[in-house]
Amino acid sequence: MSSALRHLHGLFTGHCLVLLGPRGARRGCSGSEFNVPPSAEFVARVSGIPTMAKLPYRETAEGLQAAFVGVPIDTGTSNRPGARFGPRQIRVESAMLRAYNSGTRAAPYESVVVADIGDVNVNVYDLKDTCRRIREAYRKIVATGCIPLTMGGDHTIAYPILQAVAEKYGPVGLVHVDAHIGHGTPFRRCVEEGLLDCRRVVQIGLRGSGYSADSYEWSRSQGFRVVQAEECWHKSLTPLMAEVRAQMGDGPVYLSFDIDALDPGFAPGTGTPEIAGLTPIQGVEIIRGCRGLNLVGCDLVEVSPAYDTTGNTALTGANLLFEMLCVLPMVKYY
Amino acid sequence: MSSALRHLHGLFTGHCLVLLGPRGARRGCSGSEFNVPPSAEFVARVSGIPTMAKLPYRETAEGLQAAFVGVPIDTGTSNRPGARFGPRQIRVESAMLRAYNSGTRAAPYESVVVADIGDVNVNVYDLKDTCRRIREAYRKIVATGCIPLTMGGDHTIAYPILQAVAEKYGPVGLVHVDAHIGHGTPFRRCVEEGLLDCRRVVQIGLRGSGYSADSYEWSRSQGFRVVQAEECWHKSLTPLMAEVRAQMGDGPVYLSFDIDALDPGFAPGTGTPEIAGLTPIQGVEIIRGCRGLNLVGCDLVEVSPAYDTTGNTALTGANLLFEMLCVLPMVKYY
Amino acid sequence: MSSALRHLHGLFTGHCLVLLGPRGARRGCSGSEFNVPPSAEFVARVSGIPTMAKLPYRETAEGLQAAFVGVPIDTGTSNRPGARFGPRQIRVESAMLRAYNSGTRAAPYESVVVADIGDVNVNVYDLKDTCRRIREAYRKIVATGCIPLTMGGDHTIAYPILQAVAEKYGPVGLVHVDAHIGHGTPFRRCVEEGLLDCRRVVQIGLRGSGYSADSYEWSRSQGFRVVQAEECWHKSLTPLMAEVRAQMGDGPVYLSFDIDALDPGFAPGTGTPEIAGLTPIQGVEIIRGCRGLNLVGCDLVEVSPAYDTTGNTALTGANLLFEMLCVLPMVKYY
Amino acid sequence: MSSALRHLHGLFTGHCLVLLGPRGARRGCSGSEFNVPPSAEFVARVSGIPTMAKLPYRETAEGLQAAFVGVPIDTGTSNRPGARFGPRQIRVESAMLRAYNSGTRAAPYESVVVADIGDVNVNVYDLKDTCRRIREAYRKIVATGCIPLTMGGDHTIAYPILQAVAEKYGPVGLVHVDAHIGHGTPFRRCVEEGLLDCRRVVQIGLRGSGYSADSYEWSRSQGFRVVQAEECWHKSLTPLMAEVRAQMGDGPVYLSFDIDALDPGFAPGTGTPEIAGLTPIQGVEIIRGCRGLNLVGCDLVEVSPAYDTTGNTALTGANLLFEMLCVLPMVKYY
Amino acid sequence: MSSALRHLHGLFTGHCLVLLGPRGARRGCSGSEFNVPPSAEFVARVSGIPTMAKLPYRETAEGLQAAFVGVPIDTGTSNRPGARFGPRQIRVESAMLRAYNSGTRAAPYESVVVADIGDVNVNVYDLKDTCRRIREAYRKIVATGCIPLTMGGDHTIAYPILQAVAEKYGPVGLVHVDAHIGHGTPFRRCVEEGLLDCRRVVQIGLRGSGYSADSYEWSRSQGFRVVQAEECWHKSLTPLMAEVRAQMGDGPVYLSFDIDALDPGFAPGTGTPEIAGLTPIQGVEIIRGCRGLNLVGCDLVEVSPAYDTTGNTALTGANLLFEMLCVLPMVKYY
Amino acid sequence: MSSALRHLHGLFTGHCLVLLGPRGARRGCSGSEFNVPPSAEFVARVSGIPTMAKLPYRETAEGLQAAFVGVPIDTGTSNRPGARFGPRQIRVESAMLRAYNSGTRAAPYESVVVADIGDVNVNVYDLKDTCRRIREAYRKIVATGCIPLTMGGDHTIAYPILQAVAEKYGPVGLVHVDAHIGHGTPFRRCVEEGLLDCRRVVQIGLRGSGYSADSYEWSRSQGFRVVQAEECWHKSLTPLMAEVRAQMGDGPVYLSFDIDALDPGFAPGTGTPEIAGLTPIQGVEIIRGCRGLNLVGCDLVEVSPAYDTTGNTALTGANLLFEMLCVLPMVKYY
Repeated sequence: MSSALRHLHGLFTGHCLVLLGPRGARRGCSGSEFNVPPSAEFVARVSGIPTMAKLPYRETAEGLQAAFVGVPIDTGTSNRPGARFGPRQIRVESAMLRAYNSGTRAAPYESVVVADIGDVNVNVYDLKDTCRRIREAYRKIVATGCIPLTMGGDHTIAYPILQAVAEKYGPVGLVHVDAHIGHGTPFRRCVEEGLLDCRRVVQIGLRGSGYSADSYEWSRSQGFRVVQAEECWHKSLTPLMAEVRAQMGDGPVYLSFDIDALDPGFAPGTGTPEIAGLTPIQGVEIIRGCRGLNLVGCDLVEVSPAYDTTGNTALTGANLLFEMLCVLPMVKYY
Repeated sequence: MSSALRHLHGLFTGHCLVLLGPRGARRGCSGSEFNVPPSAEFVARVSGIPTMAKLPYRETAEGLQAAFVGVPIDTGTSNRPGARFGPRQIRVESAMLRAYNSGTRAAPYESVVVADIGDVNVNVYDLKDTCRRIREAYRKIVATGCIPLTMGGDHTIAYPILQAVAEKYGPVGLVHVDAHIGHGTPFRRCVEEGLLDCRRVVQIGLRGSGYSADSYEWSRSQGFRVVQAEECWHKSLTPLMAEVRAQMGDGPVYLSFDIDALDPGFAPGTGTPEIAGLTPIQGVEIIRGCRGLNLVGCDLVEVSPAYDTTGNTALTGANLLFEMLCVLPMVKYY
Repeated sequence: MSSALRHLHGLFTGHCLVLLGPRGARRGCSGSEFNVPPSAEFVARVSGIPTMAKLPYRETAEGLQAAFVGVPIDTGTSNRPGARFGPRQIRVESAMLRAYNSGTRAAPYESVVVADIGDVNVNVYDLKDTCRRIREAYRKIVATGCIPLTMGGDHTIAYPILQAVAEKYGPVGLVHVDAHIGHGTPFRRCVEEGLLDCRRVVQIGLRGSGYSADSYEWSRSQGFRVVQAEECWHKSLTPLMAEVRAQMGDGPVYLSFDIDALDPGFAPGTGTPEIAGLTPIQGVEIIRGCRGLNLVGCDLVEVSPAYDTTGNTALTGANLLFEMLCVLPMVKYY
Repeated sequence: MSSALRHLHGLFTGHCLVLLGPRGARRGCSGSEFNVPPSAEFVARVSGIPTMAKLPYRETAEGLQAAFVGVPIDTGTSNRPGARFGPRQIRVESAMLRAYNSGTRAAPYESVVVADIGDVNVNVYDLKDTCRRIREAYRKIVATGCIPLTMGGDHTIAYPILQAVAEKYGPVGLVHVDAHIGHGTPFRRCVEEGLLDCRRVVQIGLRGSGYSADSYEWSRSQGFRVVQAEECWHKSLTPLMAEVRAQMGDGPVYLSFDIDALDPGFAPGTGTPEIAGLTPIQGVEIIRGCRGLNLVGCDLVEVSPAYDTTGNTALTGANLLFEMLCVLPMVKYY
Repeated sequence: MSSALRHLHGLFTGHCLVLLGPRGARRGCSGSEFNVPPSAEFVARVSGIPTMAKLPYRETAEGLQAAFVGVPIDTGTSNRPGARFGPRQIRVESAMLRAYNSGTRAAPYESVVVADIGDVNVNVYDLKDTCRRIREAYRKIVATGCIPLTMGGDHTIAYPILQAVAEKYGPVGLVHVDAHIGHGTPFRRCVEEGLLDCRRVVQIGLRGSGYSADSYEWSRSQGFRVVQAEECWHKSLTPLMAEVRAQMGDGPVYLSFDIDALDPGFAPGTGTPEIAGLTPIQGVEIIRGCRGLNLVGCDLVEVSPAYDTTGNTALTGANLLFEMLCVLPMVKYY
Repeated sequence: MSSALRHLHGLFTGHCLVLLGPRGARRGCSGSEFNVPPSAEFVARVSGIPTMAKLPYRETAEGLQAAFVGVPIDTGTSNRPGARFGPRQIRVESAMLRAYNSGTRAAPYESVVVADIGDVNVNVYDLKDTCRRIREAYRKIVATGCIPLTMGGDHTIAYPILQAVAEKYGPVGLVHVDAHIGHGTPFRRCVEEGLLDCRRVVQIGLRGSGYSADSYEWSRSQGFRVVQAEECWHKSLTPLMAEVRAQMGDGPVYLSFDIDALDPGFAPGTGTPEIAGLTPIQGVEIIRGCRGLNLVGCDLVEVSPAYDTTGNTALTGANLLFEMLCVLPMVKYY
């Protein structure tokens, strides 16, 4: 809406007659080292091949401080498949993102060299081989100090990503936002391989029916902090996040956000929805509450477009990824 | 998601090569008197003919302590029809339910002999005849002390069900969760026939535009407690339910939950949505707040799949029915 | 649902065998000066050509105290178009509205002579010409003192409407509910033309990413009160509205409500959804909080049916318009 | 599309700044006795309250040679309900209809005085009472010689309509286009009451599974011509219609078209879809093949919008009704 | 529709007040050895737990001449997953099937003892293990001479099914209806293992873009007859099927029908749609053209409900499976 | 499906662990001058940022013989907007295209240097300015002899494209496939400016209601050949295309294909659907019938994703664009 009246004012200059693809976005920023999404005042929102946030595409993480990367699999899904199309749909809906965070006054594109580096080339027929491919791809990404912002894909991908991350940084703290947890999830394997610093793990949003009488026993026995959805109902999570920041300290932290942590009224497009979940407001509070942490990687998983009839789940995913970008350690705030 | 990593671990044994129908679910529970939904670790979530919660189908309520039963009608609907497909869709979405309630630690399948006993054979052309058929079917169900957990169907069905229930138990208390109320609903007829103990009736969630200046005058004049949606906004309903339990005392109570009590943002798949309603969290609080009551029957009505574009309304219905099962008098908690 | 049991009671008289169109609605109200939506007890909810709230259609605002009017354009949209079909869909879903406000006990149809006066004949190819047409149409509407209740259309329409309104009433106060704001919106132009009393402007619900580091600088520098969505999270807006009423005083006030102020979980059918927005409950609180103000016009804009897969956004729009009608200065309350 | 370039040419005059409702459509046709849908060159296609084909609304059939009338019921449906919303959705989609038939060069609005006379006020709880209401309403319509063009509603409505029609014209010939037939349909009752001239009945498009080994025995035993869908596959129905015209002769004929005669690939929005049906091309050929018959009434039934995800079924219905209008006896062809 | 007027006639007896589940369907057929879907005249179409064609569920193939069986996997899909929900959705939509084939006058339920025997318990994480499970389950089914009518699942399932089938019958002829073919499909493996009688293989409907210049070279080099979609355009396939019957002779034949052989206009709900395909009419002609063959098994695969927005693809699948049942060797025709 | 069994065979090598973006597609084709879509055997179909046919993105047409280019506007639409999202959705669905045309054995990627060059940067608020931008962008594309394959966008775009094309080649022949035609379309303007060789213009598929008694008078009076949809019903268009080739001769020809030429049963996702249109088979026949013509440009317009509930319309558009690529003058056939 915002440019319509500019047009009435004759302010829409329209001199930039370029063809728009995933490289053109940087145009006009000559002299700057940063990649900036084009303003809808100069580039029509609908124009261009859909990269994340209309950022330029780069072939590797070389020279980047942060990178959006997709991992399009769903072979780890027991119920509704479709998360393989998550990265594609998040990129499509991300066309609505702009450059500044008007809630927090973060200016990520003035602080972080970031681009979209495409997708891991997964093997849709073999979960083990896919895990190997993810691990190798992420080794290269984290090698240079680049922080991966991952668009899933189902939650299985967190395991090989954490292998690569822990290889670089040692055992990491984990902020895990999810409706589900248990011995079957990727994080059990992470514990077995010593990838997590178990005293610095928090799991938020757990709920629903479970396979055992005490569904969260295993988590607690590892030393994790477990915050069930019931503890989150009817309130701001800002106080909780102050405690989480204290728990995490200065060590490296990984943030893993399963979109099914949110209530399916807000995020129906996922494989295993559970009612009575978090609101998007609480999701934003959790991520904003990670400001100040030593984040070394983030993911947003389980967006399943075939069940996202309004496009709203992918849009929510795109916004949450933008909020993650805004709390990376080097981001400048106004 | 939870079994994917089991597979990576080689833990998925896969020896149970049976064909899966509505009877096979009990397999492997030899020696047990209880029916238990199969775990997704042993039976693929997608396999099998859809009974409620993947429970076995039984032809009658004989030997059951509780029974899921469908009443597939919508002939009482003034606006959008379609609730006739409610039971079918609730069964389909219930494939995601597991055995334990991780929020309350209830273990219903270790405490209650429960099965899916199919649908009442309704007459879609004649509401009066359908009412007669429902009444007769429920007489048989309640005769043995079995507690019916009904999947509607439109709200009209509560009237013949309450006829059968009151014939067995005498006038009952009523926890009625709904967006709508008035002299036209089934409950007016119930009052006229003396089926309700009017001092033990509470109506929660009422709202929207109405046909008269005081829409709730009739209810109040019967002695009902009326809790408008406005009184529920922005807060937990746990305190309200403590009051409701005091109101209900030890006498028999029937719980009737119209899915349109919930806000249409969470439950769009219904015939007469009203904005600014309850959240699913509040819906769960109401049902959990019924723990300790002498429940003799429950229903979840007005799920209309044709308007449920995400499947989320039926899923919500399935979860609320599971929560109802979890608060039946005989249920064990860990 | 409410008439089904009436039928079982033999109370449904069914003597009114008329053909139902946009004029027939007034039938039976002989002697009354008011237009009243027919009760579903006498006229089937599904019958009739869809006017707003099943009110009679009138060719002009002559003799009306308030008028529902549609402005079906979307040529001012930068992202998803489709709001041109907003008025049509709001009318369709408004068939569920009844005569009384059961939350506030307002009786608008006993107090206000109101009708549906159809749509402005827009020019879908020329935004400037459309603005001229809107301005001229609204000059005629407000000339007689009739209060327009507008169904948009995209938000651009507020500019020519305010031209006509301010021509009649002088600079007006503004309650502006919206996710977006900035120098590009219609209100900048309104300020430049002196249509607004800048000390009596409040903007509620602003959020999302923006084009500049301080997205709301311009608003604040005009003297507007800016209430970001973050200030609204987790609470009732009733206290805020007490402050707004104080700010507005006795002067003329215009209420402009962009449906994208609401969270897209509740109102997905809009062109530029932003997550973490207001709830419909808060939307209703804002409008009810305008009771007592000297309202001279209201609009509800940006409903975009192609993205409204459940019909819920248009239904929400219809309800919010009904709530606006209920807070007009002359409305009687029980 | 067609007016966009006019705009570039400056040809779009835009002087007609009226408000558009169901009466405004006749504007500018002063002196003419005919009602004409406004051209999109002068009236935006999206503007106005949706009457059929944007024709004026009239309260009665008085003075009309033909009338579009809705009968919004679905209480006769055994499977998926929803046809009650058929008339409303057909009107909405009919906004795309223009004034001339470019395939046949018919000019119906230069030949027939036609309007939209709204809906019969049905009783959604009582099929018998609804039938009585329909019969009485149609008695009045046909009394003056007006030809009703009915928008259903489920197929049950053909029975009371034919009662009124036969009362006026005596037993009529019938062109019945449908996927289903049998002793349960409205036409059995019509035969029993002598409303049909059985040698002048043809049934086209029958198919699918049936309740008896010879599903069409009853029809044939009445003397009906039965044309199964299989006889229609892969060919034009123009030759068939020549035979039908011979069969019908000069007597009064009623055309009843169930949208489920068409293949569900083209018309999914119906209650009882059957695969391998007619194409819309064949549907148009059937109706155009009725040119020259003494048509005294037509209906288009079983459009069920909740299953019409693309709007295409209602659009098809609107077009078929327009084709029916074009073959009425008095229509002029260029 | 067909029972609505029976009701008006008072013919709907309504004495059968049973609860309806997957076993109740046989009620009233005492003395008969056959399972018969209940007529909608006695059992409401919407009532009951959804088995295929509302047939009884049986735990094994023991005593059956034919059996509907589901194989709910999609792990072999390269593009859109979701076929795992195919069996469930086909069963749901099959509620519309009746007992007789009105096009061919086949009376399958008077000739074949058939039931729904549920689903193979697949392993969604391991395609090889799933293949083993399918093979073992089908060995048991075919052991007794029962003919499996399989509801897929993706096309990979044909390979283990054919292993079991060929183990029983030796190399079989194959009628393969599909949009896709090539060295990667299950049939290459079947050839390598000698499961097919290569001179008696025909592939119909192939089209779309391919991975090599001669996409069908491999097929032809095996001796298969290849009938590209282009050869099928604009004509009946009845003559083709006469040739196919000649090719197949008296030996055992397996019919494998991929729903993507049909044009996506008719069958959008599939994983790899290709435009310009067969019509449902041609699909029915192919199956009816198999009458007289020595069919030993049939499958209908690749229905993917998440992409089936109208339910029409599953409905088409259900009808094609019914047509398959109607051409089994022992079926009686009137 | 085709690679699933390769996996079972152990043939899926999986050595290509690259990140996939719009540039990576060319990988492994070292030494070749051609761009080739990656085979799904080596690159997962779901991986990568969506360019047309997974081709590499290039910033300009420099060095290309053909180029896919998007023009994302819908400001010329009189009815349903949304075609602005056409290019994006066509690219997304084009992931299913492979390298060879199995119907015609064309090998376009072995013959033509082709890439995706992104979108024209349109001005969504000003149709005239957008036309200027398109014209200038296309001047640069055609300057080097590159043939543009345009993804619309609404049909207005053909006018500025033809300005650029005719500037390069002189007046061109036109194969125009469309449901609509008339004095308002872009082609009237083209005639006025002498861009078309009027004896070499054919219009195919015209139908529906129109604004005048002879809707096609203007076209015929220019010397165009008009082929109404009625002339296309029930037959192959291959013979027609032989005549069209004769009409076109050796001169330059532009092919403009409006997706609404197809029946809305096959292509619902468009702004102005008209029933009884062409089949996709006929659409393919028209394009394949252009083989041998001196094509200098092609477009596929009016795909409107918001109305394309199955994704099928965009998929059809992607396939038709691939067929256009296959008939360019330099393409090699096997």
